[in-house]
Amino acid sequence: MILKQFWNEQVQQYSYLIGCPGAGEAIVIDADRNVEQYIAAAAAERLRIVHVTETHIHADYLSGSRELAQRTGATLWLSAEGGPDWQYTFTTPEHKPLRDGDTIQIGGVTVQVWHTPGHTPEHISFLIHENGVLQGAMTGDFIFVGDVGRPDLLENAANMKGTAEPGARRLFQSVQRFAALPDHILIWPAHGAGSACGKSLGGVPVSTLGYEKATGWAWRISDEDKFVEEVLAGQPEPPFYFKMMKHLNKVGPDPRPAVDALPRSSSLAEFEAARERGAVVLDVRPSAMYLREHIRGSLHIPIYAMFAQYVGWLVDFQDEVILIASDEASAKQAATYMAYIGWDRATMWFGEDILRTYERAGHELVTTADLQACDVPKDAVWIDVRGRNERLGQNIPDAVGITLGEMVVRKDEIPQGKRLAISCQGGTRSPIGVSVAERLGHDVLNVRDGYLGFLTCQGRQKVSV
Amino acid sequence: MILKQFWNEQVQQYSYLIGCPGAGEAIVIDADRNVEQYIAAAAAERLRIVHVTETHIHADYLSGSRELAQRTGATLWLSAEGGPDWQYTFTTPEHKPLRDGDTIQIGGVTVQVWHTPGHTPEHISFLIHENGVLQGAMTGDFIFVGDVGRPDLLENAANMKGTAEPGARRLFQSVQRFAALPDHILIWPAHGAGSACGKSLGGVPVSTLGYEKATGWAWRISDEDKFVEEVLAGQPEPPFYFKMMKHLNKVGPDPRPAVDALPRSSSLAEFEAARERGAVVLDVRPSAMYLREHIRGSLHIPIYAMFAQYVGWLVDFQDEVILIASDEASAKQAATYMAYIGWDRATMWFGEDILRTYERAGHELVTTADLQACDVPKDAVWIDVRGRNERLGQNIPDAVGITLGEMVVRKDEIPQGKRLAISCQGGTRSPIGVSVAERLGHDVLNVRDGYLGFLTCQGRQKVSV
Amino acid sequence: MILKQFWNEQVQQYSYLIGCPGAGEAIVIDADRNVEQYIAAAAAERLRIVHVTETHIHADYLSGSRELAQRTGATLWLSAEGGPDWQYTFTTPEHKPLRDGDTIQIGGVTVQVWHTPGHTPEHISFLIHENGVLQGAMTGDFIFVGDVGRPDLLENAANMKGTAEPGARRLFQSVQRFAALPDHILIWPAHGAGSACGKSLGGVPVSTLGYEKATGWAWRISDEDKFVEEVLAGQPEPPFYFKMMKHLNKVGPDPRPAVDALPRSSSLAEFEAARERGAVVLDVRPSAMYLREHIRGSLHIPIYAMFAQYVGWLVDFQDEVILIASDEASAKQAATYMAYIGWDRATMWFGEDILRTYERAGHELVTTADLQACDVPKDAVWIDVRGRNERLGQNIPDAVGITLGEMVVRKDEIPQGKRLAISCQGGTRSPIGVSVAERLGHDVLNVRDGYLGFLTCQGRQKVSV
Amino acid sequence: MILKQFWNEQVQQYSYLIGCPGAGEAIVIDADRNVEQYIAAAAAERLRIVHVTETHIHADYLSGSRELAQRTGATLWLSAEGGPDWQYTFTTPEHKPLRDGDTIQIGGVTVQVWHTPGHTPEHISFLIHENGVLQGAMTGDFIFVGDVGRPDLLENAANMKGTAEPGARRLFQSVQRFAALPDHILIWPAHGAGSACGKSLGGVPVSTLGYEKATGWAWRISDEDKFVEEVLAGQPEPPFYFKMMKHLNKVGPDPRPAVDALPRSSSLAEFEAARERGAVVLDVRPSAMYLREHIRGSLHIPIYAMFAQYVGWLVDFQDEVILIASDEASAKQAATYMAYIGWDRATMWFGEDILRTYERAGHELVTTADLQACDVPKDAVWIDVRGRNERLGQNIPDAVGITLGEMVVRKDEIPQGKRLAISCQGGTRSPIGVSVAERLGHDVLNVRDGYLGFLTCQGRQKVSV
Repeated sequence: MILKQFWNEQVQQYSYLIGCPGAGEAIVIDADRNVEQYIAAAAAERLRIVHVTETHIHADYLSGSRELAQRTGATLWLSAEGGPDWQYTFTTPEHKPLRDGDTIQIGGVTVQVWHTPGHTPEHISFLIHENGVLQGAMTGDFIFVGDVGRPDLLENAANMKGTAEPGARRLFQSVQRFAALPDHILIWPAHGAGSACGKSLGGVPVSTLGYEKATGWAWRISDEDKFVEEVLAGQPEPPFYFKMMKHLNKVGPDPRPAVDALPRSSSLAEFEAARERGAVVLDVRPSAMYLREHIRGSLHIPIYAMFAQYVGWLVDFQDEVILIASDEASAKQAATYMAYIGWDRATMWFGEDILRTYERAGHELVTTADLQACDVPKDAVWIDVRGRNERLGQNIPDAVGITLGEMVVRKDEIPQGKRLAISCQGGTRSPIGVSVAERLGHDVLNVRDGYLGFLTCQGRQKVSV
Repeated sequence: MILKQFWNEQVQQYSYLIGCPGAGEAIVIDADRNVEQYIAAAAAERLRIVHVTETHIHADYLSGSRELAQRTGATLWLSAEGGPDWQYTFTTPEHKPLRDGDTIQIGGVTVQVWHTPGHTPEHISFLIHENGVLQGAMTGDFIFVGDVGRPDLLENAANMKGTAEPGARRLFQSVQRFAALPDHILIWPAHGAGSACGKSLGGVPVSTLGYEKATGWAWRISDEDKFVEEVLAGQPEPPFYFKMMKHLNKVGPDPRPAVDALPRSSSLAEFEAARERGAVVLDVRPSAMYLREHIRGSLHIPIYAMFAQYVGWLVDFQDEVILIASDEASAKQAATYMAYIGWDRATMWFGEDILRTYERAGHELVTTADLQACDVPKDAVWIDVRGRNERLGQNIPDAVGITLGEMVVRKDEIPQGKRLAISCQGGTRSPIGVSVAERLGHDVLNVRDGYLGFLTCQGRQKVSV
Repeated sequence: MILKQFWNEQVQQYSYLIGCPGAGEAIVIDADRNVEQYIAAAAAERLRIVHVTETHIHADYLSGSRELAQRTGATLWLSAEGGPDWQYTFTTPEHKPLRDGDTIQIGGVTVQVWHTPGHTPEHISFLIHENGVLQGAMTGDFIFVGDVGRPDLLENAANMKGTAEPGARRLFQSVQRFAALPDHILIWPAHGAGSACGKSLGGVPVSTLGYEKATGWAWRISDEDKFVEEVLAGQPEPPFYFKMMKHLNKVGPDPRPAVDALPRSSSLAEFEAARERGAVVLDVRPSAMYLREHIRGSLHIPIYAMFAQYVGWLVDFQDEVILIASDEASAKQAATYMAYIGWDRATMWFGEDILRTYERAGHELVTTADLQACDVPKDAVWIDVRGRNERLGQNIPDAVGITLGEMVVRKDEIPQGKRLAISCQGGTRSPIGVSVAERLGHDVLNVRDGYLGFLTCQGRQKVSV
Repeated sequence: MILKQFWNEQVQQYSYLIGCPGAGEAIVIDADRNVEQYIAAAAAERLRIVHVTETHIHADYLSGSRELAQRTGATLWLSAEGGPDWQYTFTTPEHKPLRDGDTIQIGGVTVQVWHTPGHTPEHISFLIHENGVLQGAMTGDFIFVGDVGRPDLLENAANMKGTAEPGARRLFQSVQRFAALPDHILIWPAHGAGSACGKSLGGVPVSTLGYEKATGWAWRISDEDKFVEEVLAGQPEPPFYFKMMKHLNKVGPDPRPAVDALPRSSSLAEFEAARERGAVVLDVRPSAMYLREHIRGSLHIPIYAMFAQYVGWLVDFQDEVILIASDEASAKQAATYMAYIGWDRATMWFGEDILRTYERAGHELVTTADLQACDVPKDAVWIDVRGRNERLGQNIPDAVGITLGEMVVRKDEIPQGKRLAISCQGGTRSPIGVSVAERLGHDVLNVRDGYLGFLTCQGRQKVSV
């Protein structure tokens, strides 16, 4: 058996290719939109991808299963569990239903389906047997390393009122059922550290059932009500884009457009025409560059590990996006990352020359003051954009706490007519907040060393970033 | 003044960016479809492209002028000379007419238009003056280094009967007019060595009028009739795609599609469906690979300097193309090269794994015997695919001479029911001919050392490749 | 805890970085010579590498531990077990001893040392505890997925007579000791499929103790003598370079030279001077290219997964190597791969132009006939270069079986004065054998479809590659 | 004839390859240290490089002629003119002398030597004849586009007192001699815009003798004394590294080391050890990054067109350099650029993680205030680091003018105990000046919009950058 785990850092997600060299065949589980990576990996191992499947209707990235099946000619298998509201609705290519107990055979490898609802009603897991011996399971968003999948997303992200508690109860049942399997089986999750799909995801790419039972909080609670209470407490704010993601993955994601061939423009007319028709100007340069000089009203999200998720929070699905980037590679990377969540409307990119052209045409470029936490002026209002969980018990007195992704929807909580000092934990997120506040019409300062800098001013012991 | 010359090896073509740093402005002349190179070069010099123009309706590559004007917001200037049949017909973006004597100003640089018909009726040249002093001229397909543009293309490539001789006469007049300019001016041509637009193009990227007058055949003939006779003699066979190119450049080329994001497939079903609907399977791997093993009926053109031109000869404009390539980089390069002539219908690429999948499905892969010229069996018919000019006085006795690009249209001249030994000069082109002959149903051998190998067998002195 | 597994396809080897984000610190285990990958991965996670260690004195690739410790300033920890003959002898940088029971602390992560001799006397394993709970173990060449490390290498590869059986007995004891650990712990091995360090290594990158106990042959034998007999049977031929590797890793590997900056030459004089002083001409182009045309006497090993290992078999450690490559990227890749095993004497590379220059200077290029198995002439001697295990019960009648890597040392078994038809399983290795035979002075044919082609000729059912 | 012009943006230098396809041979003139580009270009055209030469002992970049001759086996030809002090002194490989009137033959191309002293005593030019007709000349640092080479470098850069005027007189004679050649010949210079080797170099890569005579100042002065006066006036400050360059090129430059394989370190111990032994910490990140946060005492030169030249000004030849870079590509680019002038002592690079490690170890990172010109505080001393020619008539009242490259040698002119506001023209150079001033112990501000910003404050019309 050949097993390859693929890591997508932008959406903190794992996907899998399992193959049998003897049969020359392979299956792919939970494919993301970079479907070429699976085709290339299979070709390198002289395998053909003959089956494609996924654990559930994903909420946090756009599925590549549909496109991969089309490109390879593989059979597409999708969960038929969860009731009528949870059925995939697209018809091209045809897909075959998977139900609890079904199996898919790849040479000597048996992939057995278990219905494991909780995170979502249709969620299934795949038990992998090699030559009849159970070796491990792809558990999707059901079991993570150190956590279980949150059952509240449908309610909190997709506004399906009253689904969180029943989901939590189903999750408890799924956990109980899984607990009966042998301790030594491998647990291959769909997410790793950083994802918003659980609260304490680990940085190890795989676990075992025995280790999870020994250390995971969810496995040690035998009382269902207690479990329900626990699993619903302290979940991080779900990104806004999750709802749209669910919808797109259900009705069938489009093939990935040619985002890595994003054209470059240098026409001020094109730039202004795009703004005229409502396009978001997304400045993806390093934050130091943005703060030093940018076009007023541009949204700033630098390219780093969480880029795609902040785009999902702060840009609408239907918005056209034009990018400002330091070079061609980063412009195309930004568009590629956006495509992981289906934000496919990046239409062109501009280099830094557009700043000069813009200025020459008589417009003003904006510079943002970039201060140490100790230098924040008394009369400024301090805005803390860290997440709810981060602020808990670690707050800055008098600061207004608004989670970065929620700044637009909660804009009325931001005091008007005052200078704002935007801060986060260590300085990575606050420049994004600066751009959001500027777009809302505020006068802003960036607090470059954030809460950690604040601690230093307070004379507390230096904390390492 | 800043002047940059851009070389496109696939279509042996030069384009130009001329800028004035003081004004921060630039003009681009004879842009190819890789318009991003001009935008990037201008940005690097802190120039804005404010004018775009071209010397004539090109026949040998797809113009990027239209797209470049749109991307930069520059004014598009096009020849209004040559009469009603030679007017550009597209209307977006608007373009401004250029007539003999018109000028375009870029800071201290004056670009002056001369109508120089001959190669085509609407052909113009651009005289470049810096601070009022004539420095050189972009002469398009009118004056080359060591040659002048051929006036027979419209008749021979575009089937416009009776246009060659009048064109030749107009060309004579244009040459005479230019001859009066100062000897020291620079001549910046639109083509270099290898192009089919002239017969003796040099390998030096620039010349001077004085040097051309001293050494070029065209400048030393003072008798018009003699000139006409000379210029029409011995021109190479024009590629078939020239006619379509003229048409597309006149009605307005589309923006380049995202060819460099060509998707990879590994689905035999997709492969066979594409063949079913008539797609050409184009195998762009190195010839040694193709000869060793390929899918029956695939057309083989390896990626080298003349790739785009052989695609233009051997693939129809409306044909869908699916590629077989050694790796992602060459697949995308092939699609990019095809796009230089507007052959935009490459839809997907397959790696070498498709050969294995194809074979596993019960199909046979083909191997082609690859012989030295001295080992060609007596009973094979020798086919010499070199060009007419190459074969002249250098022929292989009993060989049938058919220029490679014409093999399909002249297929009736190929003897039926015999084994064919395909040869060229040194072995680069014959594998292409092998694939064409195989597609026509013949049993073929590749003569790997071609005419040069043949000379060796004949005991003549060894000729270096 | 952060755990990253690194895969080196050339030597089929896994290395590990384990970090604690809270402490900002990390340890690297079994580093290969590409030490920059660990530095970059740590930087991306904002971790400092403060400890470097390895499981044993590796025999199959050059260790990067020493260089990594120097580059990062980390403490270098090395096994002090195994007796006086098995101590690392280098002194710069200083290293600290590890003995059974020692621990290294990285924030909340405890790395506990167990002495697990068998594969080698000094071999140690690392038990990983997170917050006091045992999670898994890095087992080096002791436990693999589906196998245990072979105890015969010292005897068979390093000529240390009489070490195999005692090693096997120690291995049995180590297995018994490990068997007492909990079933659910993760087993992170140092090798995966393809390595010559075990006989049945799996294609899954991780396992669990419980799964190994349930399915691994070694865990089900409770009788020591039976275990010893079993573990010593049927091991593949160890590559010759293993002995040198042991030596180098013990006395301290040099930092990797700047192999990826290998200079290009095109001087025939340099080429000939290098040959004069005994340099091996190593042609790393695709085999189809080599067979079509190569310089007589060049050794051919194409760049693919096993490249480094065949270099280790067929090139001496002290040999200077000059490369012939299709392009710069593959030349540098070849030199980089060679450096994984410490073969650092690649001095320059030549492009295909050297073939033309060579020919022009009056030398002859060689072409090798490339046949289907069914077309092998009756009078040729068939040489089967597959491994001993592959030939077992699957032999070609009358064929002489000589494992590819052993062709030079067993050259007297190759019949003189006959044409040789070299074949392997499916055609990947035989061109290497062709070059070796040619260097030994034989007249050779390449059997391109090998044993699988032979089966087809015999009318047996087609076997898929 | 094939002629290729190579542009090295870092040293604003042109080199040339001239080949004859019929003979399959080529010559390279004025090679820089990236010798692989010539080898690759020749291979692509199926040419062998059989001759290597140069116009003079270069002062502004390290010559690649010696290495190229060794790599290709070509004959190395060097000027034997100029007297005993101007002879190349290295003996490996052997080189052949070139004197006025000598010729080198490459098939039908004749390269004729003219001694053209003035810029330097040994300077020669190469007249190119194709089939006996003079086509152009490689004029080195004798004739540029729009200028002639400065004869004062030996005196001003190499401290050879009393050489400027005699050089100017010899230059006048060389100009007169060249003036007799035909107007139409092409002039291929060794430098383009940006070089410090002349005062008004053009942005066009080639000229003609006739055009130079019509427009160049040097050609219109018929009186020798007047010419001498004119040519010695207003030359820019020569970089300090010129003297060393002369020396190295005369005694024989070493082959380029493997700078593009520069190792990465993340060890604070290595960092501090390097500082201890006097290494310069060179921070090549974008200036916005440097200003925001850097290690005290690091020298900052961002990677852009003039990078190598500022390294030559501000770093000593014998200094070890350790780099701080944003990513691997820019670190290696920096080392490669440094190698163009022979500054080969870059020993390792650090990523931005070293800043965190450094801080964690208790050191302080420095932030530099980055102001608009209008916001410069009254009590700061304004330092204008533009060149002498730029400041002429365009000065800032009360500003101290010190050309950037001379800041260290003229450090006593910088007022002590005051805050310095460092400015240049548009903001590109001032951050370099900031780092130099900081290293000299000053308290500094960066004036980000420089003289252009100052003009705006003064209410003058906005000037475009």
